Amino acid sequence: MNGTYDLVIVGMGFAGYSGAIYAARYGLKAVIVGEVFGGQTAEAHIVGNYPGFEEITGLELMQRVQNQTVKLGVTELYERVEGISKNSDQLFTVTLRNGETIKTRAILLTIGVTRKKLGVPGENEFYGKGVTYCATCDGYFYKGKDVAVIGGGDSAVTGALYLADICPTIHLLVRSDKFKAEQYWVDKVKAKPNIKIHFDTVVNSFEGVDTLEKLVVTSTEFSELPVQGAFIEIGHEPNKLFTDAIGVKTNQEGFIIVNEKQETSISGIYAAGDSTTASNKFAQLLTAGSEAIIAVEAITKELSR
Amino acid sequence: MNGTYDLVIVGMGFAGYSGAIYAARYGLKAVIVGEVFGGQTAEAHIVGNYPGFEEITGLELMQRVQNQTVKLGVTELYERVEGISKNSDQLFTVTLRNGETIKTRAILLTIGVTRKKLGVPGENEFYGKGVTYCATCDGYFYKGKDVAVIGGGDSAVTGALYLADICPTIHLLVRSDKFKAEQYWVDKVKAKPNIKIHFDTVVNSFEGVDTLEKLVVTSTEFSELPVQGAFIEIGHEPNKLFTDAIGVKTNQEGFIIVNEKQETSISGIYAAGDSTTASNKFAQLLTAGSEAIIAVEAITKELSR
Repeated sequence: MNGTYDLVIVGMGFAGYSGAIYAARYGLKAVIVGEVFGGQTAEAHIVGNYPGFEEITGLELMQRVQNQTVKLGVTELYERVEGISKNSDQLFTVTLRNGETIKTRAILLTIGVTRKKLGVPGENEFYGKGVTYCATCDGYFYKGKDVAVIGGGDSAVTGALYLADICPTIHLLVRSDKFKAEQYWVDKVKAKPNIKIHFDTVVNSFEGVDTLEKLVVTSTEFSELPVQGAFIEIGHEPNKLFTDAIGVKTNQEGFIIVNEKQETSISGIYAAGDSTTASNKFAQLLTAGSEAIIAVEAITKELSR
Repeated sequence: MNGTYDLVIVGMGFAGYSGAIYAARYGLKAVIVGEVFGGQTAEAHIVGNYPGFEEITGLELMQRVQNQTVKLGVTELYERVEGISKNSDQLFTVTLRNGETIKTRAILLTIGVTRKKLGVPGENEFYGKGVTYCATCDGYFYKGKDVAVIGGGDSAVTGALYLADICPTIHLLVRSDKFKAEQYWVDKVKAKPNIKIHFDTVVNSFEGVDTLEKLVVTSTEFSELPVQGAFIEIGHEPNKLFTDAIGVKTNQEGFIIVNEKQETSISGIYAAGDSTTASNKFAQLLTAGSEAIIAVEAITKELSR
């Protein structure tokens, strides 16, 4: 990449693009870099709580935000960031997997979180052969088959609702005795006759021959559950490997510690979105976007000094 | 109002409706109360930095958010809130101007800010007779006339752009030697031949007989400026009278002090949006909405205890 950028945004999810919109409007020379477009939002079957859209698919929302960003002149770069280092001249060097480097005056990390694994036997073995982590992404491959969704939060419940239209029976397996999801989604799930809710149900292993055939569970109802697909939707965790490599301080769970300006422990590196400790750790579109624009406003002020 | 509410949201701007969407989806019994619909957002000529909409009028965005909210079952109540008191049973009583009261378990203040006045002679005298505080609201009445816009931030600059299509000449009077507005808007203003930019220009008084005829200014260019309309767009300040009456702690400038859950100094009363000290005091749609939903999530957790 030629020349020095004002801002490199690492991560192509909602926070990244929100920050990019503001960066462009403030006249910063900015690039948004990432391996995959859209982040968690692009995987959301349906978004109903973002003000302005009654119901929109996550992918469509992200595409709208992307178009808006690109029209403002922000460069997109589809490449994995391998490293970030601070130079003696106070500029940062961002190294990409393809070997290229970018020089920049400031960095905004919007690196999001990755899907949590159950960590039980068979989970890795049957991944892609019945075990998956995203109902919206992979549900279509299980059309007409009986499936299980594991989890009790919004993504599990909305995943089950999505599958209810294409699978004959969906077993929703919740570890505790109640949902963590929004009441709005819980009511919708309860109204679907082909979604069977099982509380106090723990998955111990995934079993089968070539592909998934059944779950072995601890529950008061049954000890085995024959299904051809299992969607693990139990939340997310931060990507600790990446933050460790950069050297920004994280809390015990690996979330990036930021101050009121969204700046990390390294001066000039900011962070926003689900991977940070901000917003009372409430990970939503509005909070992710808000963190990103607070960071970009602070960066703009800092760079103009 | 019959029965006890879980949440009364005071203020019908973007923060209020964002909070209301989440309250409804979390299953809270909520009402949103205010004198006027739409807040500052509804007055915005054009919104270009809210992710998801390349360009949308503030009013249209607010109407979309309102429709979304109402469909989720939130009650709207167009009435002025006169007082809030905490009862011995830990419930709050909200008193309306019409004498009605509402009992509620929690309160979210999204009361926004009011437009700053210049505080110079003639400003009050010619209010509505040439002097106004909102180009988007009142610009149409000045179609075909020469006008001045006073201010150097986003609202002044976007106001001038709006007027550029309906007024022959717009004088943009900026107190300092540069704009505080986004570079994006500054570039657009500079491209309009009928917007005349005057830096280092201070307005001393508004003069005329029955209606505004001229501004008396201190500037290197001229000492009087003949215009028939003047739009004062110099920012906003919190409504201190209201917060004083309720008793929540504010900072020196009158902004409501909130903690990481958006709770004020009074347990059970939360605040969000432009009137608070949160979000590094960056007042935007995303930050206002984010504060509101952080509050509603915290309220939901608190009420379920």
